[in-house]
Amino acid sequence: MKVLVINAGSSSIKYQLIDMKNENVVAKGLVEKIGIPDSQLTHKINGQAYEIKKDLKDHAEGLKLVLKTLQDPKIGAIKSLDEIDAIGHRVLHGGTLYSTATLVTPKVIKDLEKLIPLGPLHMPANIEGIKACQKVMKGKPNVALFDTGFHATMPDYASTYAVPYEWKEKYGVRKYGFHGMSHEFIASEVARITGKKNLRIINCHIGNGASVCAIKNGKCVDTSMGLTPLEGLMMGTRCGDIDPAVAEFVMNKTGMSISEFINIANKKSGFLGVSGVTNDIRDVMKAMNEGNARAKLAYDMFNYRIKKYIGSYAAAMGGVDVIVFTAGSGENRDEVREEVMKDMEFLGVDFDEKANKNFKRGEVNLLSKKKSKVKVYMIPTNEELLIARETARVVKNSK
Amino acid sequence: MKVLVINAGSSSIKYQLIDMKNENVVAKGLVEKIGIPDSQLTHKINGQAYEIKKDLKDHAEGLKLVLKTLQDPKIGAIKSLDEIDAIGHRVLHGGTLYSTATLVTPKVIKDLEKLIPLGPLHMPANIEGIKACQKVMKGKPNVALFDTGFHATMPDYASTYAVPYEWKEKYGVRKYGFHGMSHEFIASEVARITGKKNLRIINCHIGNGASVCAIKNGKCVDTSMGLTPLEGLMMGTRCGDIDPAVAEFVMNKTGMSISEFINIANKKSGFLGVSGVTNDIRDVMKAMNEGNARAKLAYDMFNYRIKKYIGSYAAAMGGVDVIVFTAGSGENRDEVREEVMKDMEFLGVDFDEKANKNFKRGEVNLLSKKKSKVKVYMIPTNEELLIARETARVVKNSK
Repeated sequence: MKVLVINAGSSSIKYQLIDMKNENVVAKGLVEKIGIPDSQLTHKINGQAYEIKKDLKDHAEGLKLVLKTLQDPKIGAIKSLDEIDAIGHRVLHGGTLYSTATLVTPKVIKDLEKLIPLGPLHMPANIEGIKACQKVMKGKPNVALFDTGFHATMPDYASTYAVPYEWKEKYGVRKYGFHGMSHEFIASEVARITGKKNLRIINCHIGNGASVCAIKNGKCVDTSMGLTPLEGLMMGTRCGDIDPAVAEFVMNKTGMSISEFINIANKKSGFLGVSGVTNDIRDVMKAMNEGNARAKLAYDMFNYRIKKYIGSYAAAMGGVDVIVFTAGSGENRDEVREEVMKDMEFLGVDFDEKANKNFKRGEVNLLSKKKSKVKVYMIPTNEELLIARETARVVKNSK
Repeated sequence: MKVLVINAGSSSIKYQLIDMKNENVVAKGLVEKIGIPDSQLTHKINGQAYEIKKDLKDHAEGLKLVLKTLQDPKIGAIKSLDEIDAIGHRVLHGGTLYSTATLVTPKVIKDLEKLIPLGPLHMPANIEGIKACQKVMKGKPNVALFDTGFHATMPDYASTYAVPYEWKEKYGVRKYGFHGMSHEFIASEVARITGKKNLRIINCHIGNGASVCAIKNGKCVDTSMGLTPLEGLMMGTRCGDIDPAVAEFVMNKTGMSISEFINIANKKSGFLGVSGVTNDIRDVMKAMNEGNARAKLAYDMFNYRIKKYIGSYAAAMGGVDVIVFTAGSGENRDEVREEVMKDMEFLGVDFDEKANKNFKRGEVNLLSKKKSKVKVYMIPTNEELLIARETARVVKNSK
């Protein structure tokens, strides 16, 4: 069985074709600048990348090019579309309607359209991606997975904001959480590695976007992102937690509107806003090592906040058994992991600094000493594989 | 030496006359509705309360009535104003200018006026209170203490928000923290009780307003309130931490302005907003025990958030030695303390449920078992006594 995994953005389509027999990625790629000039496809197979430039006026045209390329005798991976058994879609928001992988029906499409206000930037593109597949690959099953889905199990006292309750009932104002597919994949990896399902896991997904998730017995009990991905940790360009009154204060001082404020909080804050250098932690660390004080401040803030969320979620679960670092910095920045794990012995962590320094990229790494009560891991995340697995499961069950 | 402690609000003056010889409160009281109809003074001495109704057009008139009452042959406490050696004032905001108790000079008044934008509701009244004392008690030393003062020692990575750094430089957008006098008083009490100064303390000041403070070696290293008292824990009517994007989302849905939003976040949220019943935890608990599901949700949210801040600050300090509960609910609601301390063994807490249930009001109570690695206390707070002590110290040192 082969599953095509689709992640459609406003002007892009990321894809992976995964063979479920061995869970190998057969081919993958990215269509960029759909509907704008210079659109192109970058296709990767057998370690080689190929660029194809072609005007693409919408997602359906983009998808057609992907499917044509996948069937190309030279750089393709399949002989005909019959080899693709199902398509799995990454969708930002399931609201309170959808939490698990869902076979797409006309009703599902209608429901997703209702959820657009909760994800005005992503949802229209996600829906467009599904519709393009329905149009171009008639009759194939499409399955939707939700970035919010894994967090649906949060208890109400964790997901409710202490604002007027009517806002939750009328407008859906609550904590939804994001990065759900990554957190879910890591939960499954920890179960696989340890052979145990009844663990208290704190997963730190530390990329340009970043969130922490508290996972008890395989289920999410709390997470740091909220109504939107703005809440929680400091990120590449997002501010994370601030006093909600900062908005009013800055708007009064500058005369900016709330949408200008939130735009800055999303796109000009975090590492970029504090350091003044860049949103990329690697450049911030470089500047810091060259003596840039604001870069040092940004780096310290970033690590300190991860550390505090770990403590917070340990308290939420009455302790912790496994701490995981994953995604961009979580997988690749041993300095961040070392800093965050410093002075965490009170939790039961005996961190192995040597193992951390000598970690192997792309593999599961145990970063705590053998007798450490709390195990610390670096585990590479793989949201696409989770989507493919769940898509295969749903399609099998629907037959 | 006798110190008059003044806490001036927009239409009120709270006062205590404290004899520093034995630190006893000689008399205390409250002037209400200054500048509005039905203004009155409630004066307490020797366990008796007296009400005096009198039109008071400003703070100076209110203060004159206080001083006249303090010298009253029947219900007064002093024979002449000569017995008052100094006046200590509670001031909301010291900005980055003032952290410790400060003898008031004309320059200080000017500086405080500059800080009004940081506390537009409180600062004008605080300044009015000082000016009234200068006018009515010419020549007496006035000392200002700041609700933000104790938090000035926070490291920059704890006090900086991950928003554009220019906002901090230009507008003073940063975490200041509040309840500083209470947190400082508790730190001094813990030092007195344990005989140790090099401790890691987490103080939970849980009143209608509520904040948690991380105190290391007697100094604040982090606290839950921020630029304003809105950030952090859920409170009587304040929402505490939310996704900063909630403001934009709700404003778009309802058409309200940012000041309307922040007003609701301050005055119609918290216990009141979630339960729909009241801002008073006692009434919420009553409703919960009668089966009100939203009251139960509000109560669970409240406790859960305190618990998470304790975990977070333990991580910030590499562990914790002493946890303290103080202020209204902290001192009087054993159910809250029990709920918050549940499943905190991983921190080294061995909570004594019996001692907690049978606690003595108004006294220092040890709430952890004798061998508990982390000590848990209920300690009554006393901000006025801290103000009086610091005022006496500053006046002595200035001579």
